[in-house]
Amino acid sequence: MVDLRRMLHAEPELSFQEEKTPEMIADYLERLGVVVKRNVGGRGVLGYIHGGKPGKTVALRADFDALPIHEETGLPFASKRPGVMHACGHDGHTATLLVLAKVLMEQREQIEGTIVLIHQFAEELAPGGAIEMIKDGCLNGVDAIFGTHLWSTMPLGQIGYRQGPIMAAADRFDLVIRGRGGHGASPHETVDSIAVAASIVSQLQHIVSRNIDPLKSAVVSIGSFHAGGAFNVIADSATIVGTVRTFDETVQELIIERIEQITKGICQAMGADYTLDYKKGYPAVVNDELETNHFVHVAKQIEQDFVVHEMDPVMGGEDFAYYLQHVPGTFFFTGAGNEENGIIYPHHHPKFDFDEKAMLIAAKCLGKVALDFLSRTEQVKGKEELPS
Amino acid sequence: MVDLRRMLHAEPELSFQEEKTPEMIADYLERLGVVVKRNVGGRGVLGYIHGGKPGKTVALRADFDALPIHEETGLPFASKRPGVMHACGHDGHTATLLVLAKVLMEQREQIEGTIVLIHQFAEELAPGGAIEMIKDGCLNGVDAIFGTHLWSTMPLGQIGYRQGPIMAAADRFDLVIRGRGGHGASPHETVDSIAVAASIVSQLQHIVSRNIDPLKSAVVSIGSFHAGGAFNVIADSATIVGTVRTFDETVQELIIERIEQITKGICQAMGADYTLDYKKGYPAVVNDELETNHFVHVAKQIEQDFVVHEMDPVMGGEDFAYYLQHVPGTFFFTGAGNEENGIIYPHHHPKFDFDEKAMLIAAKCLGKVALDFLSRTEQVKGKEELPS
Amino acid sequence: MVDLRRMLHAEPELSFQEEKTPEMIADYLERLGVVVKRNVGGRGVLGYIHGGKPGKTVALRADFDALPIHEETGLPFASKRPGVMHACGHDGHTATLLVLAKVLMEQREQIEGTIVLIHQFAEELAPGGAIEMIKDGCLNGVDAIFGTHLWSTMPLGQIGYRQGPIMAAADRFDLVIRGRGGHGASPHETVDSIAVAASIVSQLQHIVSRNIDPLKSAVVSIGSFHAGGAFNVIADSATIVGTVRTFDETVQELIIERIEQITKGICQAMGADYTLDYKKGYPAVVNDELETNHFVHVAKQIEQDFVVHEMDPVMGGEDFAYYLQHVPGTFFFTGAGNEENGIIYPHHHPKFDFDEKAMLIAAKCLGKVALDFLSRTEQVKGKEELPS
Amino acid sequence: MVDLRRMLHAEPELSFQEEKTPEMIADYLERLGVVVKRNVGGRGVLGYIHGGKPGKTVALRADFDALPIHEETGLPFASKRPGVMHACGHDGHTATLLVLAKVLMEQREQIEGTIVLIHQFAEELAPGGAIEMIKDGCLNGVDAIFGTHLWSTMPLGQIGYRQGPIMAAADRFDLVIRGRGGHGASPHETVDSIAVAASIVSQLQHIVSRNIDPLKSAVVSIGSFHAGGAFNVIADSATIVGTVRTFDETVQELIIERIEQITKGICQAMGADYTLDYKKGYPAVVNDELETNHFVHVAKQIEQDFVVHEMDPVMGGEDFAYYLQHVPGTFFFTGAGNEENGIIYPHHHPKFDFDEKAMLIAAKCLGKVALDFLSRTEQVKGKEELPS
Repeated sequence: MVDLRRMLHAEPELSFQEEKTPEMIADYLERLGVVVKRNVGGRGVLGYIHGGKPGKTVALRADFDALPIHEETGLPFASKRPGVMHACGHDGHTATLLVLAKVLMEQREQIEGTIVLIHQFAEELAPGGAIEMIKDGCLNGVDAIFGTHLWSTMPLGQIGYRQGPIMAAADRFDLVIRGRGGHGASPHETVDSIAVAASIVSQLQHIVSRNIDPLKSAVVSIGSFHAGGAFNVIADSATIVGTVRTFDETVQELIIERIEQITKGICQAMGADYTLDYKKGYPAVVNDELETNHFVHVAKQIEQDFVVHEMDPVMGGEDFAYYLQHVPGTFFFTGAGNEENGIIYPHHHPKFDFDEKAMLIAAKCLGKVALDFLSRTEQVKGKEELPS
Repeated sequence: MVDLRRMLHAEPELSFQEEKTPEMIADYLERLGVVVKRNVGGRGVLGYIHGGKPGKTVALRADFDALPIHEETGLPFASKRPGVMHACGHDGHTATLLVLAKVLMEQREQIEGTIVLIHQFAEELAPGGAIEMIKDGCLNGVDAIFGTHLWSTMPLGQIGYRQGPIMAAADRFDLVIRGRGGHGASPHETVDSIAVAASIVSQLQHIVSRNIDPLKSAVVSIGSFHAGGAFNVIADSATIVGTVRTFDETVQELIIERIEQITKGICQAMGADYTLDYKKGYPAVVNDELETNHFVHVAKQIEQDFVVHEMDPVMGGEDFAYYLQHVPGTFFFTGAGNEENGIIYPHHHPKFDFDEKAMLIAAKCLGKVALDFLSRTEQVKGKEELPS
Repeated sequence: MVDLRRMLHAEPELSFQEEKTPEMIADYLERLGVVVKRNVGGRGVLGYIHGGKPGKTVALRADFDALPIHEETGLPFASKRPGVMHACGHDGHTATLLVLAKVLMEQREQIEGTIVLIHQFAEELAPGGAIEMIKDGCLNGVDAIFGTHLWSTMPLGQIGYRQGPIMAAADRFDLVIRGRGGHGASPHETVDSIAVAASIVSQLQHIVSRNIDPLKSAVVSIGSFHAGGAFNVIADSATIVGTVRTFDETVQELIIERIEQITKGICQAMGADYTLDYKKGYPAVVNDELETNHFVHVAKQIEQDFVVHEMDPVMGGEDFAYYLQHVPGTFFFTGAGNEENGIIYPHHHPKFDFDEKAMLIAAKCLGKVALDFLSRTEQVKGKEELPS
Repeated sequence: MVDLRRMLHAEPELSFQEEKTPEMIADYLERLGVVVKRNVGGRGVLGYIHGGKPGKTVALRADFDALPIHEETGLPFASKRPGVMHACGHDGHTATLLVLAKVLMEQREQIEGTIVLIHQFAEELAPGGAIEMIKDGCLNGVDAIFGTHLWSTMPLGQIGYRQGPIMAAADRFDLVIRGRGGHGASPHETVDSIAVAASIVSQLQHIVSRNIDPLKSAVVSIGSFHAGGAFNVIADSATIVGTVRTFDETVQELIIERIEQITKGICQAMGADYTLDYKKGYPAVVNDELETNHFVHVAKQIEQDFVVHEMDPVMGGEDFAYYLQHVPGTFFFTGAGNEENGIIYPHHHPKFDFDEKAMLIAAKCLGKVALDFLSRTEQVKGKEELPS
């Protein structure tokens, strides 16, 4: 598992540009005897492990794309590609699922039902690979799905779960305020775009403080504000860029509406124009209550070298969200930090690394919860459409 | 003059309720032989002094109403009417003009043209008496008009003049913001009218700071803000009342437009409604350039016991403004304060008083400028319509 | 139970003025053979039911004060006291606990341990009666405590529980901004307290939007804003009153600090002074995890005529919070609304009522959870100090 | 005069880098027989025309530096130096004064007293050349000073004068707000510098709207606001740059104090730090009342091909201000625009030009007012210290 991970780590490929990685994955799975579909939804790979007994179908997902970051870890297996790096642990996700596949193939005869291995491309870059793989049928016949993220800011030896929303919807908006420039000494002949934009920034604070149910979570943050050049010239326009984080679609829609309403109202109040471009990112990752309960139950049974605990939601986004919009399942976090060994850098950091022992814990949890799901006597969806 | 003033002072009458005062004035003038018209525009009195020679027509104006203030001067001639007081010096204005009339009547044969004495009711209360007196013909045939205000915050012995705007237009606006009340713990189910109104108060500051030519004067002030009762209930509505002061009609119109625009925009931004009631008060008193120059020239000739100087405009209002919209003329201030004698209270104060010697200075200036105007060889307007 | 409730309802007594009610309760309990302590912490009543077997000690609490509201229900047993009303159901709480006492006394011999009945005065008015009763020893030897609120906005037949915070800390703050008044036309000679206060209202929005962890709940609402009288006079001072709601003491302390910091900063920025009076109300009611789990377990066993469900926290306050700061336990809500019978008014409404059948459900739950607690084989605290 | 101007125009030199221009000026004056001092205050040139009769001393000033602008006029005599241009008419000022010197030298014998020609370097770049030339004695013995600006936005044939302030003090301030950056999804772990800076921008509006006498002029404008890079990262710091324009030193000092106070207060309110760097530019150009009256009188006597009118003050700055802090005098504007000939571009524009006929008008006015001053029988300052 470690060799596989390091091999992948050394050859990272950017989102939507993955070529060798999916080939390697597919070849590896085929060598195991797994039924493989290539180029699913573009660059994805599906593996089907048909158990020896009839039953339900469960999917496990790992993503395999890398980031446009220049690695500074100094590791012997560091990226060979300048400016490209597995700085989020997707190399670990992939290695985990591949080795898990090997173990599952070895006990294939005892398995009731089918296990679908979803090797997904392009998780790091919206709109992401999940949507396209789902469109291309990766969830056909699937009754449940499970996935994990190796997490360097959670210590090795912990598994974090959460009912309902575990990762936020992360959106972006770009707002351009157009006033009318002019001489700084003659404000009355201008529409001062900086004054307008400043008023908008202040007024946007009312969304979270006044419009959102206090029992629900939401963030509206402005990340950048740029306007003007000379000290004595009133700026013609101001550009604001921000992010919105929510766990609830109703809250998200309300915020979108309120941002527009506030911008429009303040611009009218001040005689300015605007262009607002709101881009939804991935939706919130919302775990299924029943499957999360089963996962916790399963994980607690096997927890010798790790602890299972409920965690706070993470405000970042994940396109695993889309799978959970179609089938029940749960997404959990596998602790992979190790302060003693200097594994302390957050995700997307040029010195990011994770403790490779976490992969084994992740594999155990994924494998056990998949087998547990298949062994539970519940209604089975038809599976005629699966490749065999 | 002093007796007349003290008699008037003891029997003040409120604006639009003047009864005895105009009777007394009219009787006094008739006794002098002045041609009198009563009930002009309601409660006004006109006196016509036809000179012995033909000529132009000049008007002099004095107002005679009092204020709803309870006098606390302790003067022997203090108001006999509880809660009503000549706290702005209109008693002095009236006495000045009456005694001046007597002096002019004595030299009637030498006068070229006609002097119209405008004794005006209701200056203190908008819409004021000037409009109605003008409608009723008090300016018919009049070529120029002059008036003064005894001024307790200017020392006795000073005459203040100014070209162009000398007193501001003083308007009032009432703004009701209607949000949607609710429990203080559930702001998301409400539209917080206090938050909306507070944003409007802040945004209104941009009018003077951003929208008005820095070389022009304007004030937008909020005098009252009232909303809500309980600490834990979000207020359904908020009421704001304010004033606007300007010297220039274009600036005034711009402010009216901007208040509406800001209120509308912020309400839209926050989901609230509003009612805005803007009431224009008296317009700015704008002195005529030529007549002011003549006045300064005349005043300087007679200045022995007083000094003539240019003054800053006063932000308060006067319905003398309306006369100057129809005929040229000038309105000046006659210093009437006297620190040594304890005459230090501002106008509209319960202890307001003025130095009675100021009346003589005022009478001299008014009389001289009127005669000077009549003696100048300029085009004469027809005067057929004047009563004779 | 219904008779008792109606008798109490007809004779409501205000917080800290209860006289007849505690007498009636104490007499009733003594007649049952319960060991009674009167005037606990002032006006509270304690009853001790010592079981026939040794064991732990559990407390049940009911409050008995009424509100300064004039009843408009038109019920035959409506309040006989004008302006005073049991508009929050405390009459029902008391009747429930009294009748439960009777039932428990009947099965006293089988009970392992002691049941303490806490009849509390003054829940409606901070600082409340709980603090004083605790100081006076009502929790001495107590191992756990349970309580409920009849809830008219939850339908009859529902029991609502929640782990952790179930009711908010509800605080109040009074803020007076002192500027320097003056004429509306001369803002430069004043410190405009309305402009300052409006800026503070807007700036306070940043607390929830910027300073509070988005995963935590908090509300800062302004309920009233009063300043100024005349439209053309700048107000000397402005008074703002608001409320803060939190579930977490760290968040509460942060908000207190931030309100002070913002007020101070804006006042300094604008040259104003202020007085800020922050009054903490009851703390959040924070349910114990273990005892809540036991309660849910017990309640589900007996749920025939009702449903047990997790509920959202309520933003209102309860001084039951103080008991839970000393001993574990849980506070739950007993649905008591009935739309068909017109029982639709919220608490503190002049037409408030509750479905009396809810009392039976409340009594069952309280009794069962108390007995379940006593029967569980867990460490027992010493009980030497209890009255016997 | 035209030849001289075109020669200067073709060879512009930047402020504080003038070399050939002062040489040319000094040589020209020496050829006329004028007593010349070179390198006055650095790069300035003084010329002394001693009249044939004893008398007072009057100074005339012309500036000769150019701007870092790339000329786009396409004129045959356009700048030969890329990126440097006489885009403000200083070439014209210099030519005017040189030719005027020639004329004055021709009538030297009739002149009572001395005329000092101040050819000033570095007017365009604060701190400017005037301060250093004054320190170096250019005003020694001088009784009065006069100067003009050729003005392309005033039509040829107009002379604009003004009593008191005619050009504003133009200052600059640089404000850096330092919060604490962090992830956009976790605002509570940051101090949001954009939110702080936006609040400051809004609060700064209160200076002009609330703190400045409405009868006085002031401008506070923000020209640039820059903060942050990524949409989802809260910015560590924000940089604001602005300008302040005033005509009155008291107003200027008040604004400086208020900017600091507001910035400090808001930063304290929000937990941020700041650095404020306020740089005073040139003070307001304040014309002397008496000398301005004389100038108007003189100018009206010679107005055949031009009209003399009072003008509004100009909000831009001029270091002529410093001379007027030492000796009385007046600065006036000479109309130099000509729409028909396409001379329509404002000063500092790459296509800026002026109608060369304006130089003759400027020369006449300067010469006449200087001679008029010398011929007036007023007290004479000692002139021992002048070079002869």
